[in-house]
Amino acid sequence: MSGFKNLTGLPTKDKFYNYILNLQDTITSKLEAIDGKAKFRQDVWERPEGGGGRTRVVENGNVFEKGGVNISAVHGELPDSMQQYFGVKDANFFACGLSLVLHPKNPMVPTVHANWRYFEMYDQQGNIVDSWFGGGQDLTPYYLFDDDAIHFHHVCKTACDKHQPHFYELYKKKCDDYFWNTHREEARGLGGLFFDYCKATDEMSMEDWYSFVTEVGDSFLECYVPIVEKRKDLPYTDAQRTWQEIRRGRYVEFNLVHDKGTLFGLKTNGRIESILMSLPPHVQWVYDHHPEKGSDEEKLIDLLKKPKDWIKF
Amino acid sequence: MSGFKNLTGLPTKDKFYNYILNLQDTITSKLEAIDGKAKFRQDVWERPEGGGGRTRVVENGNVFEKGGVNISAVHGELPDSMQQYFGVKDANFFACGLSLVLHPKNPMVPTVHANWRYFEMYDQQGNIVDSWFGGGQDLTPYYLFDDDAIHFHHVCKTACDKHQPHFYELYKKKCDDYFWNTHREEARGLGGLFFDYCKATDEMSMEDWYSFVTEVGDSFLECYVPIVEKRKDLPYTDAQRTWQEIRRGRYVEFNLVHDKGTLFGLKTNGRIESILMSLPPHVQWVYDHHPEKGSDEEKLIDLLKKPKDWIKF
Repeated sequence: MSGFKNLTGLPTKDKFYNYILNLQDTITSKLEAIDGKAKFRQDVWERPEGGGGRTRVVENGNVFEKGGVNISAVHGELPDSMQQYFGVKDANFFACGLSLVLHPKNPMVPTVHANWRYFEMYDQQGNIVDSWFGGGQDLTPYYLFDDDAIHFHHVCKTACDKHQPHFYELYKKKCDDYFWNTHREEARGLGGLFFDYCKATDEMSMEDWYSFVTEVGDSFLECYVPIVEKRKDLPYTDAQRTWQEIRRGRYVEFNLVHDKGTLFGLKTNGRIESILMSLPPHVQWVYDHHPEKGSDEEKLIDLLKKPKDWIKF
Repeated sequence: MSGFKNLTGLPTKDKFYNYILNLQDTITSKLEAIDGKAKFRQDVWERPEGGGGRTRVVENGNVFEKGGVNISAVHGELPDSMQQYFGVKDANFFACGLSLVLHPKNPMVPTVHANWRYFEMYDQQGNIVDSWFGGGQDLTPYYLFDDDAIHFHHVCKTACDKHQPHFYELYKKKCDDYFWNTHREEARGLGGLFFDYCKATDEMSMEDWYSFVTEVGDSFLECYVPIVEKRKDLPYTDAQRTWQEIRRGRYVEFNLVHDKGTLFGLKTNGRIESILMSLPPHVQWVYDHHPEKGSDEEKLIDLLKKPKDWIKF
């Protein structure tokens, strides 16, 4: 899709950085076209310890109430807390990635999150001692349309199947596990793909991983755009909007309590406003809220309690 | 105030539990009287592993948009994560306390939080191997009225001064340190008191600590009620309400990212709805929001960046 995939000779980090630079343009252009009103505001920032990012945020659009499509590439000494986490000492690192979250205004349109990233760790001599890819994309609806879930997962599966026959099943499962809001005993949404620590093996070289991760990145618009087009003009009530705002509260809870990406950003002195662009614009917390028996809202909760197979559906 | 203070012969845990039972009644009655409309809804709950609580929540009042005044007393095996935290093995525990958070509707009325608690740890034979009191109370305004801050801190100081001359300064400082939203580099609010691990010493017996903590608990209504009475009927604009909702977002960030009390509740399988009653009803996250230069909103931020001495003011 981007053409950058076939760049040869460049180190993986540069190739992948070029890829996300380009993908950010592709995605933000398409989203602006769909929205018809909102334009992404761009903030370029520098990290004092090394690196920086290009944040693009949209607010108060026709379709997108709030969203961000951000890239960053940061490097330097690995912070103490991360050294402990990885069990290493005196390590330096490089990390780059694209992170996006879109919160549509209409509760019939699901929130979407995606992230594709690459990480390198160095010893004091600057040798790469470890490197891996990670990423994924997942959907968080407020009202469940089976067709949307099936579409999203089918596009994910098609991207995976081009690389390894077991990838979809494996990374769909990892996504269900990762986006589990333990304190609520429910999923954040209806899943998608999640992969991490994708390192070179006999089966997959780093070049193969690069090709897989960019395949998934390239599939994002195909995953999400048709759903937005189909649902963005559906009518909705104030009560449905309230439900959306309550469910957005669970999104906040997941991101602030459990999400490793958010934590990584906070621990590596990332730019706070870029990290927390993932938080929804208007949110409610209602004490002990339960949807009515047999309602659409209850149907969603039932689904979130028990992740589903959307391929054999 | 409650009369329970002078109960003798009872173990500390029973005496303190009686105290918070009674204090919950005192506080909720007074708050209902001030609100004039809202009544606290009561939920009594049991914790599968031992103990339970009595949650009282108010919503959509004239004055209080949302709030909770909760007591709980839980016991059993100390969860693994907490054993690691305390550096102990095979320990059992008992913990009881009263936690309250009030989110007023009018942005001129500050949010308030208070908590008073007692903790015991046991070996496998049921001997108390450690015990301590903790607690505090702190104010989070959306608009700054110096008089309110001075009043709140003076009442806190008066309660402290009855026990040890250095307590106010010490626990005011601990409060400023604890309620520091590190990732925002600002305080949650304008402080008050915070104390923890209050154990028997040559200077203070457990009986003395009991007397101190209940003194602070008894001072709560005097700290907060006059402020509510003074500000609850002030007019406010939609823009001021928006500011309140944005600032409430910072309250959510502190509670979900940093607050040890919330974490303790989540780790000990507390009742989620009782723990998260602290989250505000309506909240906004606006990307990279900055108040106008010279505005009241900026005045508040300036204060939160650098905690102030409200006694020598």
